[in-house]
Amino acid sequence: MAAAATAAWAQRLAGVRGLLLDVSGVLYDGGDGGGTPIPGSPEAVARIKQSGLKLRFCTNESQKSREKFVGLLQRLGFDISVDEVTAPAPAACQVLKQRGLQPYLLVHDDVRSEFDKMDTSNPNCVVIADAGEGFSYQNLNEAFRVLVSLENPVLLSLGKGRYYKETDGLMLDVGPYMKALEYACDVQAEVVGKPAPEFFQAALKEMGTEAHETIMIGDDIVNDVGGAQRCGMRALQVRTGKFSKKPDLETLFPALRSLCTGPGPFCPGV
Amino acid sequence: MAAAATAAWAQRLAGVRGLLLDVSGVLYDGGDGGGTPIPGSPEAVARIKQSGLKLRFCTNESQKSREKFVGLLQRLGFDISVDEVTAPAPAACQVLKQRGLQPYLLVHDDVRSEFDKMDTSNPNCVVIADAGEGFSYQNLNEAFRVLVSLENPVLLSLGKGRYYKETDGLMLDVGPYMKALEYACDVQAEVVGKPAPEFFQAALKEMGTEAHETIMIGDDIVNDVGGAQRCGMRALQVRTGKFSKKPDLETLFPALRSLCTGPGPFCPGV
Repeated sequence: MAAAATAAWAQRLAGVRGLLLDVSGVLYDGGDGGGTPIPGSPEAVARIKQSGLKLRFCTNESQKSREKFVGLLQRLGFDISVDEVTAPAPAACQVLKQRGLQPYLLVHDDVRSEFDKMDTSNPNCVVIADAGEGFSYQNLNEAFRVLVSLENPVLLSLGKGRYYKETDGLMLDVGPYMKALEYACDVQAEVVGKPAPEFFQAALKEMGTEAHETIMIGDDIVNDVGGAQRCGMRALQVRTGKFSKKPDLETLFPALRSLCTGPGPFCPGV
Repeated sequence: MAAAATAAWAQRLAGVRGLLLDVSGVLYDGGDGGGTPIPGSPEAVARIKQSGLKLRFCTNESQKSREKFVGLLQRLGFDISVDEVTAPAPAACQVLKQRGLQPYLLVHDDVRSEFDKMDTSNPNCVVIADAGEGFSYQNLNEAFRVLVSLENPVLLSLGKGRYYKETDGLMLDVGPYMKALEYACDVQAEVVGKPAPEFFQAALKEMGTEAHETIMIGDDIVNDVGGAQRCGMRALQVRTGKFSKKPDLETLFPALRSLCTGPGPFCPGV
């Protein structure tokens, strides 16, 4: 990268102390056998950690429990642990507890363990997540019947993404199914996950940085970039994942590193 | 029915020469073994035909070909033939032909024969109908992939109903899945069927009556009643089908019959 461009990036990123990183489409593309890392991303994560910048993974992944998700990413070569991940399923459990809601779960079997402590008898709300093949007609119809029978229907949606990329092509995400239920029942879903401000704020709190000193990096212009900006963060959109062109996280890293090689209080270890 | 009420109905229905009848939820409720007729409806259809009123069946049924649909209704005791039915699949075929479109069909196997003459190679549009169990994740995702790959995506939806009633409960109709694809691909569907004005106008032309002398009877306030009224027809909503309270078609019939027992040009045979 030319020196002038690096300097321009450095200016844009001045004052950044922490990074929130989207995962799917930024670090890896899901698919057969779990998926494949986007080239350069495991190294970029390692270098961000070495740089002294704070780092947290902020994902709308709702098809797997955090344990399964982190296990997959570790196998793909990423330095990541469960307590570094902000994900919508635990956030939804908090909402359910606070409001005394008993959910009907339209979710993937691999994320069901996150809801182990929830009472799912006599459901008085529906929780919808990226159920993948679990989005059968029968399952969606059952969720519809629960909602339509409620006097005050509550629909919690773990994210509202349109689609994501797997190695063999684009895949419908939870958002289209959320819209289907909204239309069928004339109800407005409450989104838990990006781009909800509460979700970003929880991630910031867990990381220990303020919005103005944090940057969000993701591949989704609405859920990652727009959501973070509305919370007062800066945001960068990579062109991997849903997009097909550079820059990816690897090509962004020199700009991020430039933050940490100049003098400044935020990169003491570099 | 009290004489005063009958007279009030007669006034409201003055000048009516023809009836458009919705089918599902008005004549029968679908379900196991094909479904069950709504009590009194086969007799009401017979009496309407005897009255000399013109009659046409105007349905958004898109899960079965007209042949299968009419065969089912005949087995349930209705006096009905294929050439009395206005249905969305043939209307969609006309649109496809006129515009040189080759569809990807997200439809039920039982309606596929209506599209036999369509070229479905290299699809440049998607046709979505009430696919029932055919609304698997894989099938919806395939339709999404076709649409998202097109420079000018075209989505034809055979109706946009939210749900309908079968004998064992409410069932999601095509509308929620149409909304899912609209959201996933940022596209606006073109609805073929009720409440599209072109569809009602085709039914009127086939029946040979003008809008102001025709009444639409259905159970759906948007697709039957609203759609017909926007075309200049009067409309009656029955409380069978999606609704659980009277009046049903049988209780409406005395009012309709009152049209035909008084003197007037439209009921010569009564």
